Amino acid sequence: MTTTKMIISTAAIISTGTELLQGLYVDTNAHWLAAQLTSEGIEVNLIAAAPDRATELESLLRYACSRVDLIVCSGGLGPTADDINREVFARVFETSLVEDPHAVEMMRARFQRRGRVMPESNLIQARVPHNAIVLYNEWGTAPGFFIPPLPGTEGGKESRCRPALLALPGPPRELQPMFRERALPVLRSWLGPRRFVRTRTLHTFGAPESELGEYVRELFATTSEVSFTMLAKPHGVDIRIVARGKTEQEVAARLAELEAETRKRIPPRYIYGCDEDTLPSVTADLLIKKRLRLACAESCTGGLISKFLTDVPGVSACFLAGIVTYANEAKEKLLGVSAESLQCFGAVSEPVAREMATGALAVSDADIAVAVTGIAGPTGSTDEKPVGLTYIALATREAVSVQRYVFTGDREFNRTFAALTALNWIRLEAQKIPDPSAA
Amino acid sequence: MTTTKMIISTAAIISTGTELLQGLYVDTNAHWLAAQLTSEGIEVNLIAAAPDRATELESLLRYACSRVDLIVCSGGLGPTADDINREVFARVFETSLVEDPHAVEMMRARFQRRGRVMPESNLIQARVPHNAIVLYNEWGTAPGFFIPPLPGTEGGKESRCRPALLALPGPPRELQPMFRERALPVLRSWLGPRRFVRTRTLHTFGAPESELGEYVRELFATTSEVSFTMLAKPHGVDIRIVARGKTEQEVAARLAELEAETRKRIPPRYIYGCDEDTLPSVTADLLIKKRLRLACAESCTGGLISKFLTDVPGVSACFLAGIVTYANEAKEKLLGVSAESLQCFGAVSEPVAREMATGALAVSDADIAVAVTGIAGPTGSTDEKPVGLTYIALATREAVSVQRYVFTGDREFNRTFAALTALNWIRLEAQKIPDPSAA
Repeated sequence: MTTTKMIISTAAIISTGTELLQGLYVDTNAHWLAAQLTSEGIEVNLIAAAPDRATELESLLRYACSRVDLIVCSGGLGPTADDINREVFARVFETSLVEDPHAVEMMRARFQRRGRVMPESNLIQARVPHNAIVLYNEWGTAPGFFIPPLPGTEGGKESRCRPALLALPGPPRELQPMFRERALPVLRSWLGPRRFVRTRTLHTFGAPESELGEYVRELFATTSEVSFTMLAKPHGVDIRIVARGKTEQEVAARLAELEAETRKRIPPRYIYGCDEDTLPSVTADLLIKKRLRLACAESCTGGLISKFLTDVPGVSACFLAGIVTYANEAKEKLLGVSAESLQCFGAVSEPVAREMATGALAVSDADIAVAVTGIAGPTGSTDEKPVGLTYIALATREAVSVQRYVFTGDREFNRTFAALTALNWIRLEAQKIPDPSAA
Repeated sequence: MTTTKMIISTAAIISTGTELLQGLYVDTNAHWLAAQLTSEGIEVNLIAAAPDRATELESLLRYACSRVDLIVCSGGLGPTADDINREVFARVFETSLVEDPHAVEMMRARFQRRGRVMPESNLIQARVPHNAIVLYNEWGTAPGFFIPPLPGTEGGKESRCRPALLALPGPPRELQPMFRERALPVLRSWLGPRRFVRTRTLHTFGAPESELGEYVRELFATTSEVSFTMLAKPHGVDIRIVARGKTEQEVAARLAELEAETRKRIPPRYIYGCDEDTLPSVTADLLIKKRLRLACAESCTGGLISKFLTDVPGVSACFLAGIVTYANEAKEKLLGVSAESLQCFGAVSEPVAREMATGALAVSDADIAVAVTGIAGPTGSTDEKPVGLTYIALATREAVSVQRYVFTGDREFNRTFAALTALNWIRLEAQKIPDPSAA
């Protein structure tokens, strides 16, 4: 038997949960994990979901064992009777489960912090394969674990190595940090000669996919060195550039070149940021940089603009207040919108949007205020005012202007699109204002 | 050899496309098909995705053939080089491809309607297995097809029948009508005596999964007649009961019995609704029923409570206004929080939460007001005030009370959990108030 270290280059992602097989929810973990593994240079050859039934899961694991070097399995590590994964893993990977004392300790401490006593049934979550590297979970109760790959035991060149197993808890807010902070450092020591991969995602807002597609028509490519794709999301289009190569420098140069080519072709107002940027984060950064303080007045968006802005840590440096005036009387009372305007033009009108924005500016001490009033649907439309009709107003100490839109989606889409359109307007407006630190 | 008709009772769903394996798209087809097949009484035992590579797809199809009666395959029927599915199907299902003249005709007509000449490369899309029922496609170019199941050819009771294959085009706007209008009528003639299926999902808030698990320990079951599972979501636990049977009455009775058993065991405050209910929708319904009008004052949740409430169409009947006072000066100006409280106790404190709630009640004309102030993280904590510390206050015209929490998640989780905890408190409070229409 050789002592050559096994190398992980292919993977299967297996999710477990009967609900997945019944179409009750979409398997977002598999999607997320696939992107992570791909960017580590691992080729994902199989994504699969099995019900919480030992025979099905066991059969699927054995199949995956014959195809890949690494199986990443999410879910099925809970404390209840339908969480069967541990036992099945032990059987397929020919190992036994032991209670990990440190995991028990962490779980007890977690319950204690919440002022609760841990039910004894939780102890089962601390059981892990004896030959596994335990991945401790700071974000939930169940620890994950990693069983390293083993050379094939049957000898001969036909025998494959037994793949590695990475088991992770199912809730995304546990799985994601567990993968990044616990699993990845372990996993990386099993990867082959590093192929460098870098990705740049440019986020756009306001241009349809077909228009963007025309600008960059000659850049579309999928080779072993680069890929250039467009991904239409519900509220904007992403342009995704992936570069691969043997050295970091080579990859960085390739990526930079293609990004520059892309930016040269697309009108700059459409690209609001890249990678981790969001429209709210970019808008907030810009407001802070320009020392502008914002207030917003919302009707149909119902708090969504405030919500988006306060998703950004540190936004208190520019965001003063949001006023959600869903009822007409609240528009009068809290923002000083005139009863006449409400009566003559209705709540969804140019004058009311204007008064909401100037009202928000007056009651706060903001430098800039945005207001949104519209008919999100599905009800509330009239012959003159269709579902989706939305007025957005932007007020500064100098001026106020109003734009009219008719959004054509459902309630959820219209609200989100209205909120993002408002944020984008703030962004474009703030860009025009000179940087005070540059003075 | 018997002439007994094969019956389809289990299925696998296979999606193809390298982009899926790279995490570029979420596989919404599988999710949609799983729900459709489940509601036809077919048990889905496997959902899987394979790259556009013949060896991987062939291997996966052979594995699925050994596990189920029907394989539903989406995608890979396009005209380009990476559309390999037809050839692989022919190999695995031991058949040959022939050009279907009617499909060619439909494709030519489709191109003609758009004023284009069909490229000859499209002809490959009209090639279908000679033993298949062709499913003509009015919504796109590629026809789908159905190869009926076959009895096992090896004899003996060990041999399984060779499963059926349903091949559908990948774009959801083609796949969905193709499945409903073309495939389902064919498929139904292969299903066993109709089994009725009904599902009830009970939504809970405020109890950890393990505690709920203890209450209903003896109800967990997965038989051919019922299944009882728990699903921990980020902000609450769902209990899902599925009943199956030969008649609608039998199924309804079985479901009602198990639901009653479940409700008997779980403290009623935890279960806020079922099926399509959400915590905001249930809370809004209750407020409307009790003729209570709500205002809210938000700091760390930054508009999320308002956003959740205004997700519910028609919420204007109970929701007056939300005031997002992110900055301290906004708390003073808009809600009348005293400068002393802010200075002595800090923005995240019991007195400030209290004054925010009473302030919101005063500036609106609401009957009930809720206020939230806390440290969502990741920054903003001090030695005395950890990340996650949150005060929620509830004020009515009669009284105001404050509760203190320490949430242990990340920013996103803490904000969402704080908003839902506030809504849940409103719900529990509104329940206590007598119904005015009952008077």
